[in-house]
Amino acid sequence: MFRIESILTPAVLLISSLAAPTFAADVERWGIFEAEFLGPSGGNPFVEVEMSAVFTRGDRQIRTRGFYDGGGVYRVRFMPDELGEWSYTTEGNRPELNGKSGSFNCTPPSEGNHGPVRVRDTYHFAYPGGEPFFPFGTTAYAWTHQGDELEAQTLATLKASGFNKIRMCVFPKDYSYNKNEPVFHPFERRGDGSWIFDRFDPAFWRHLEERLSQLAAMGIEADLILWHPYDRWRHSHMDPESDTRYLRYAIARLAAHRNVWWSLANEYDFMLKRKPMELWDRFFQILQEEDPHQHLRSIHNGNIDDIYDHTREWVTHVSLQHYDVQRIKEWRNRYRKPVLNDECEYEGNIPHPWGNISARELVHRFWVTVTGGGYATHGETYDHPQDILWWSKGSVLHGESGPRIAFLRKIVEERSEGYAPMENSWVWTRVSGASRGGERLLYFGPHQPLDFIAGVPKEGRYTVDVIDTWNMTIERLPGTFTAPFHIPLPGKPYMAARILEAK
Amino acid sequence: MFRIESILTPAVLLISSLAAPTFAADVERWGIFEAEFLGPSGGNPFVEVEMSAVFTRGDRQIRTRGFYDGGGVYRVRFMPDELGEWSYTTEGNRPELNGKSGSFNCTPPSEGNHGPVRVRDTYHFAYPGGEPFFPFGTTAYAWTHQGDELEAQTLATLKASGFNKIRMCVFPKDYSYNKNEPVFHPFERRGDGSWIFDRFDPAFWRHLEERLSQLAAMGIEADLILWHPYDRWRHSHMDPESDTRYLRYAIARLAAHRNVWWSLANEYDFMLKRKPMELWDRFFQILQEEDPHQHLRSIHNGNIDDIYDHTREWVTHVSLQHYDVQRIKEWRNRYRKPVLNDECEYEGNIPHPWGNISARELVHRFWVTVTGGGYATHGETYDHPQDILWWSKGSVLHGESGPRIAFLRKIVEERSEGYAPMENSWVWTRVSGASRGGERLLYFGPHQPLDFIAGVPKEGRYTVDVIDTWNMTIERLPGTFTAPFHIPLPGKPYMAARILEAK
Repeated sequence: MFRIESILTPAVLLISSLAAPTFAADVERWGIFEAEFLGPSGGNPFVEVEMSAVFTRGDRQIRTRGFYDGGGVYRVRFMPDELGEWSYTTEGNRPELNGKSGSFNCTPPSEGNHGPVRVRDTYHFAYPGGEPFFPFGTTAYAWTHQGDELEAQTLATLKASGFNKIRMCVFPKDYSYNKNEPVFHPFERRGDGSWIFDRFDPAFWRHLEERLSQLAAMGIEADLILWHPYDRWRHSHMDPESDTRYLRYAIARLAAHRNVWWSLANEYDFMLKRKPMELWDRFFQILQEEDPHQHLRSIHNGNIDDIYDHTREWVTHVSLQHYDVQRIKEWRNRYRKPVLNDECEYEGNIPHPWGNISARELVHRFWVTVTGGGYATHGETYDHPQDILWWSKGSVLHGESGPRIAFLRKIVEERSEGYAPMENSWVWTRVSGASRGGERLLYFGPHQPLDFIAGVPKEGRYTVDVIDTWNMTIERLPGTFTAPFHIPLPGKPYMAARILEAK
Repeated sequence: MFRIESILTPAVLLISSLAAPTFAADVERWGIFEAEFLGPSGGNPFVEVEMSAVFTRGDRQIRTRGFYDGGGVYRVRFMPDELGEWSYTTEGNRPELNGKSGSFNCTPPSEGNHGPVRVRDTYHFAYPGGEPFFPFGTTAYAWTHQGDELEAQTLATLKASGFNKIRMCVFPKDYSYNKNEPVFHPFERRGDGSWIFDRFDPAFWRHLEERLSQLAAMGIEADLILWHPYDRWRHSHMDPESDTRYLRYAIARLAAHRNVWWSLANEYDFMLKRKPMELWDRFFQILQEEDPHQHLRSIHNGNIDDIYDHTREWVTHVSLQHYDVQRIKEWRNRYRKPVLNDECEYEGNIPHPWGNISARELVHRFWVTVTGGGYATHGETYDHPQDILWWSKGSVLHGESGPRIAFLRKIVEERSEGYAPMENSWVWTRVSGASRGGERLLYFGPHQPLDFIAGVPKEGRYTVDVIDTWNMTIERLPGTFTAPFHIPLPGKPYMAARILEAK
């Protein structure tokens, strides 16, 4: 994934800008261009040295902040979104980092690289080329803090799964089942063990970047959580200046990864004492002003009554937690943005009520959410003899919801449009119905009718699929139907029906 | 149930009042005293003749309206609530109905007669003697309109069931599955088939009264619905004057039945065009002013957004329909009265979304409601070749929820206090918890923890029962527990636990 330019002398840069692309590396579209510079290593370069680069193509100019990577090495990264030649010039408060320039050629993306996910059609997502992205995410908050063996296992599990997004924390985690010491720390430490929040540890960040790139290679979006309250290293206790420095460093290092989504926090409201609402707003504004690639931005609540005001203009999509998935339409209508219920409780059996719903219930909550025009996120919390729970540490999945969620994803991905929930009748407060283009998807949940009135326009002929959401079967009913018609159903719960306009 | 005095001459009355109880019939406490009088039969006695009686015992004076029962016969009925001698004197706008008096002796109630149900402790119910009444009702709206054979079957089913309340309509019903003509009609009919709303048909009312008495004999409360919109006989189209006359006639005839609850309507909001809110309020006021026995009064919505304002002083308890049973605590806190979710959807498999939830789901909804400090009502709507669905016509039950609801009732009836929901933690928004006296009842629904933190006061020892709500087992865990302790659970959904203070 990385195309790393060697340190260029001004002379070479001059040649490269005259005769590019001969001397410049190629970078694929939405890949990562990186330029490396030598600079001062004395004092505290993380604080004292400032550098950035302006990337230019035609009329476009995009500024991106550089960062210190230790050992006197400074880097700038950039994710080109347009084919052809790009050039750049640096600015810095040290002569060796100022006025350096170069260029590179942006080549077509490799297979599987669709670019960064954006909002599409108010409530949905797509890649820049228009290919839809339907988030079917999972959660492994601290998976990058578990060491290579477990992390490799997690990547293998993800690869074999149907998930295309993962919620994960930058910082390590201290919580029930999460008492092991992380391999890497984001900051340096003094001899007395205290943390130096103005000195980043590049090893930590390189490790995180490798994991982000591995996820990208599998087509998995990284819903990257910048702060969280579950902490014994005082990351959640940093002062606003340190928080801001950390945020800027994260942008400088990570924003060139196309699969990054910024999640300001997991459960921001549990940190309001130290980080009041204005500070969260400010973090959003910094992302909005300084992320050169404008990745998706959201923030996740803890208490169900503390959902952030996602109508604010800097929020790109709604990320919330709520066990009552029926409210999906209410949130869509309130926020008018894509809604992700990123914690609708997890499949598992631990004592915590958010972590012990049945697989059937989680699959049910996915169906209610998706037919409500939103998206849900998986997590798994089965008791484990070594406290290795997927929801936090990753490793392997033990549950039964994963394949059923992948089955739903497959149904959703059969068309490019997103679902809009049916809202014009009391019926749709009881059972779930969604439509898109020539398709209607009905989901009955605990309802078990022997037949159901289709409620489709009178003109037109339809084909009908009866779907067993748990047994993962789709049965096409023989023939075509004209309205009004009843859909025959097996009289058992957790069934769905798909009505398609016949050609 | 009926103690019918013969028509007494004034001379006999005089003797009886001097030398009672020799000449007066005995009436058990909360039984029905009835006095019969001959009066005019010409003209329209239902409109033109007014009569009432004032019943006296000691300082107490209670007025009750008489009614015309056809054939020149007038009756007054009264449900004595105090032992000993009661006397009465009539008032009427005809000489033969005016100034008649008599007396009777009120004797102790027979076994199973606990009197009329009243509100107790804000959120619950009890009989006048203090014995708790925990409503576990069912629904058979039109069961008294099906003819003797089916009605006898319904009574037999009720007798063998665990239900102690039934929602039932005075008027017949016209709706899906309900197209058969009733045996009796409440009003007389003209030769052209049109209805005479100011002439009641006593045969209809006698039949209804017999059914009410049969229910009372089984200890079943009759949640009697006075109006409903499902109608081809124009009962829901009557003018306010006819409506009021009907209400007063119903009070005069039926109020002496101890097991009557007044439900002004099923789905009153579907009749608002003809019967605006002020009229419903007025009906409530009439009941409040004129029901000599002050039976429970409520009214039931159709749309979930049209729940009547049950804070109004004339409402004794909340009767509503809502599929989202999680809201039980919200309703309790809003209305500060007992809450009955009288239609939380029915076990069945018909196409209507309110009538096709699984037995497991209905049992779940009962548990959520009861541990939320409220009460739920059963109904069953399985497709039937002759359209005989329990929810409307009665007959027999086909489903699986009934025994599980009876199992829950048994648990609830093990103590006399009602449950208060636990509300002091976010935990209780996810799982259900209730307490009363030295008992805590936890219900986990789709949650399937392997263990759960009991959260009981530190002092004290506890015994713990693990309850399988579906398989209807109660397993007492060995030994006693002191706080804090975890309750071991089987890691499957729909379990409950009961924590009892050990002696």
